[in-house]
Amino acid sequence: MARAWYLKSRPAGMPSLDNFELRSVELAPLTSGTIRVRNRWLSVDPYMRGRMNDVESYVPPFSLDAPLDGAAIGEVLESKAEGFAPGDLVSHRFGWRDEIVGPAHTFVKLGNSSVPPQTYLNTLGMIGATAYFGLLGVAAAKPGETLFVSAAAGAVGSAVVQIARLTGMTVIASAGGPEKCAYVKSLGADAVIDYKSEGDLQEKLAAVAKNGIDVYFDNVGGDHLDAALGVARQGARVAVCGMIDMYNGTEQVALRNLFRVISHRIRIEGFIVSDFSHRLDEFRAAMGRWVANEDVVGRETVMEGLESAPDAFLALFSGRNLGKMLVRLP
Amino acid sequence: MARAWYLKSRPAGMPSLDNFELRSVELAPLTSGTIRVRNRWLSVDPYMRGRMNDVESYVPPFSLDAPLDGAAIGEVLESKAEGFAPGDLVSHRFGWRDEIVGPAHTFVKLGNSSVPPQTYLNTLGMIGATAYFGLLGVAAAKPGETLFVSAAAGAVGSAVVQIARLTGMTVIASAGGPEKCAYVKSLGADAVIDYKSEGDLQEKLAAVAKNGIDVYFDNVGGDHLDAALGVARQGARVAVCGMIDMYNGTEQVALRNLFRVISHRIRIEGFIVSDFSHRLDEFRAAMGRWVANEDVVGRETVMEGLESAPDAFLALFSGRNLGKMLVRLP
Repeated sequence: MARAWYLKSRPAGMPSLDNFELRSVELAPLTSGTIRVRNRWLSVDPYMRGRMNDVESYVPPFSLDAPLDGAAIGEVLESKAEGFAPGDLVSHRFGWRDEIVGPAHTFVKLGNSSVPPQTYLNTLGMIGATAYFGLLGVAAAKPGETLFVSAAAGAVGSAVVQIARLTGMTVIASAGGPEKCAYVKSLGADAVIDYKSEGDLQEKLAAVAKNGIDVYFDNVGGDHLDAALGVARQGARVAVCGMIDMYNGTEQVALRNLFRVISHRIRIEGFIVSDFSHRLDEFRAAMGRWVANEDVVGRETVMEGLESAPDAFLALFSGRNLGKMLVRLP
Repeated sequence: MARAWYLKSRPAGMPSLDNFELRSVELAPLTSGTIRVRNRWLSVDPYMRGRMNDVESYVPPFSLDAPLDGAAIGEVLESKAEGFAPGDLVSHRFGWRDEIVGPAHTFVKLGNSSVPPQTYLNTLGMIGATAYFGLLGVAAAKPGETLFVSAAAGAVGSAVVQIARLTGMTVIASAGGPEKCAYVKSLGADAVIDYKSEGDLQEKLAAVAKNGIDVYFDNVGGDHLDAALGVARQGARVAVCGMIDMYNGTEQVALRNLFRVISHRIRIEGFIVSDFSHRLDEFRAAMGRWVANEDVVGRETVMEGLESAPDAFLALFSGRNLGKMLVRLP
């Protein structure tokens, strides 16, 4: 018997462990064209919170009658499909469980690579692509410009810091607490704001962004977005990647500086990484080189065992992760 | 002696008549290359409120030591400049006063035209260009799409309604009170929401925009922007032209629906009509034809006499205008 996490009930506001249930599941029989995969790495990501609501969005809501899903890396145990052999590592979407039998076409074989396989859940995967296309595509960031990025110690944020540095931008970042700030500084940020320290966020931002900012990469929303609008230069762009402070609440965002959208011709644009799937080759070439050269390094926070998956997910919302949050399975 | 309105003091919040002072001013001597002009029409516009604050913006703040300025149409009384003769009508920026002597190059002669001269302060001027470029440029509105426009009985809003209808869009508009709503309906809007009537604005908008909206032309900000975000379709664009409810306050805007920027890839973009000065020929050709054919009609609310200019300006913020607010001088 395999085991898989189900959503027992839809969270109202912040999720809790009570919303999740680990169940035994029957694996499908291994028929021709299918493979059996043992998961080694599971990804938990903030966007999954949105899928726990029963509302139409860019990805369908999680069903209460099926295991949760998400990105994962697994190892082939048995194969009745051409091109897959036991021991092969595969990338796929059947996360939140330990084993799966599925049609071979729903798995992508990882090539021989010098990088650890979980890198494909981080800088070489959706995380890296989100940072890359959000910064260079949506925000059209250019060398010489000044960037502000929030949640910069997180998976996407830390990739944004490094890509921006490689692009020749001045990088101002925010993170919560001294440890995270030191980490972001070590990635090459020119200035790091501890948003948990005393004082008004916009004043702290203005103090280090003396000439304002050209791009804000928003992972947070709320007061960070407002502070960014408050110091934005003429023609500034805001790429809205996430609003982690809104995923769990129904509260409203109060903005004091929204009128500056007019006076400073600011563009605010939301995006989803799949909007750029036609440009994945470009991403893989650029990021593959940076990762191989260790110009972009993806830090990981790892929790052990399938049992820890919901806690790993909840940890995203209390800031317990540095870099990418992953679950490792034996 | 001529007379001109000065800003006596900078308003905090909503301006009042006390902030203005009518003073006698000495006209400059009529030297070679200058003309003397008697103003016939003065424009008062919401953006002037921003210039009353002593802050850097896209236009410099009004000085307390010089007459207010703004768009105006006048008649040449005397000329020492080639190409200008008494009786010529000119468009210029020396509003808020009755007479002016200035260098000829700061005036533009109105050609022979079948339209009343004040049309150049309305549909054929900055108002029309703001509507045209905001809708077709910034928001990239397309035939078949659904538009929502706020303050649709105002100068810019009523032009937006008509241009959108000519473009083949479904037009949903909002205005305050039955008279204004009837006027907007007469312009060809498919549905008009009275935002002053009972009920939640977003619910009222959702009731008429059954399939959501593709474009929101924002003249208002606040709850209108939030309602628009709440019903915006995938890939919707918001052109932010004005936030009249923020010009006079320091209050914050509370948005419940901002997270939809991500899930629905919404673009919010502020603009200023002068961003499109390189495309003025295109505007003049298109709008000139529409105005000549009476496809776009610019309604006017006229106050009489230089003395009424501050009151005409204040009326913009209490919704006392239908269409373009103008001051007529004898």
